Amino acid sequence: MSDTLPVTERTRLRRSHERGCFDREAIYAILDAQPMCSVGYVIDGKPFVTPTLQWREGNHVYWHGSSASRALRHSRDADVCLSVAILDGFVLARSGMHHSVNSRSVTLYGRAFKVEDPAEKHAKLGRFVDTLFPGRYGTLRPDHAQDLKATMVLGLEIAEGSAKTRSGGPKDEDADYELPIWAGVLPVRSVVGAPEPDPRNLSGVEMPAHVRGFRL
Amino acid sequence: MSDTLPVTERTRLRRSHERGCFDREAIYAILDAQPMCSVGYVIDGKPFVTPTLQWREGNHVYWHGSSASRALRHSRDADVCLSVAILDGFVLARSGMHHSVNSRSVTLYGRAFKVEDPAEKHAKLGRFVDTLFPGRYGTLRPDHAQDLKATMVLGLEIAEGSAKTRSGGPKDEDADYELPIWAGVLPVRSVVGAPEPDPRNLSGVEMPAHVRGFRL
Repeated sequence: MSDTLPVTERTRLRRSHERGCFDREAIYAILDAQPMCSVGYVIDGKPFVTPTLQWREGNHVYWHGSSASRALRHSRDADVCLSVAILDGFVLARSGMHHSVNSRSVTLYGRAFKVEDPAEKHAKLGRFVDTLFPGRYGTLRPDHAQDLKATMVLGLEIAEGSAKTRSGGPKDEDADYELPIWAGVLPVRSVVGAPEPDPRNLSGVEMPAHVRGFRL
Repeated sequence: MSDTLPVTERTRLRRSHERGCFDREAIYAILDAQPMCSVGYVIDGKPFVTPTLQWREGNHVYWHGSSASRALRHSRDADVCLSVAILDGFVLARSGMHHSVNSRSVTLYGRAFKVEDPAEKHAKLGRFVDTLFPGRYGTLRPDHAQDLKATMVLGLEIAEGSAKTRSGGPKDEDADYELPIWAGVLPVRSVVGAPEPDPRNLSGVEMPAHVRGFRL
């Protein structure tokens, strides 16, 4: 498997192509940093975008939902675009034009497939829980067969797409550095607050390490 | 103008429709809370999603980019889907099935239009800066005419779409509350760090109130 994804007609379409990156490890790192994603699909020629959670296993990303979901039914065996975007900060420049954001994003294209095999689907859903909270799945009430049946898992090979990253301070025009205008960066990050135990937790149940140690 | 958006074929398509909300003020509040959005559009029948920043003026949302951007050229006078999604926390339940996320999201549908009038476009770009950083635009180096010409502003009327919110703790099945499994919420929020002044700021230039007081 190549370390980089190919440049294709679709990936060439991206705005600011000069910042596009086709490096597999860079793409993986962004997917792994943020489970929230947006999946784009088409129904009757019109665009739809659904926010959902993705997880990565090797060279594939997966997401899931109700088997009855029209979003999933229209993404299955169809072209999708999966986007992950992380806001890292606001970049304040000396002109409006050069204001920007620091961010990391990945856009993937391809045909989504349904994970058909029930045992494989079950394993993937368990891995989804464990990707976020290592070791948690084995501690849970085992899944009901009818719940698994009512759940669809879709996958997408990481074969076409790119990453885009902007970091650092403002880039102004030479003459503008003479101006008495405050420029700089307002960094933004996601933080995880103190865990909020369910009031109905049984007494004596301790907070597990995958909760205490959770980081985004 | 009605306080609620109509239920349409497209908004009915949403997963977990039972949590859909068509209240205009609820939709506005989510749009105003997070400038990052994902715009979905179609090229040659295939879905594309581009992360960008949106800002709201009354009953419209706007976004912008290079006039040469294929993303913007294919969104203009075309059907788009604009999605804003804010992750508020991870919900850990007693079974895998009932794990969830707390989140607020808005999905809007419609035909994007280009802001044609140069003066109106200019005013909108200034308002974009001031929406994030009140009063900043007037302090900046005035825009160059050629930069404005190279920038496209697209708008979308907030006429079709819905909001979706999930908050609170896990909802488990009755029998599962007897199990000695830790359940609860890991809250997530975006925080703004200490402003990072550009090392090339002129000496004596003070940090403005719109930077010091910036909140997401």
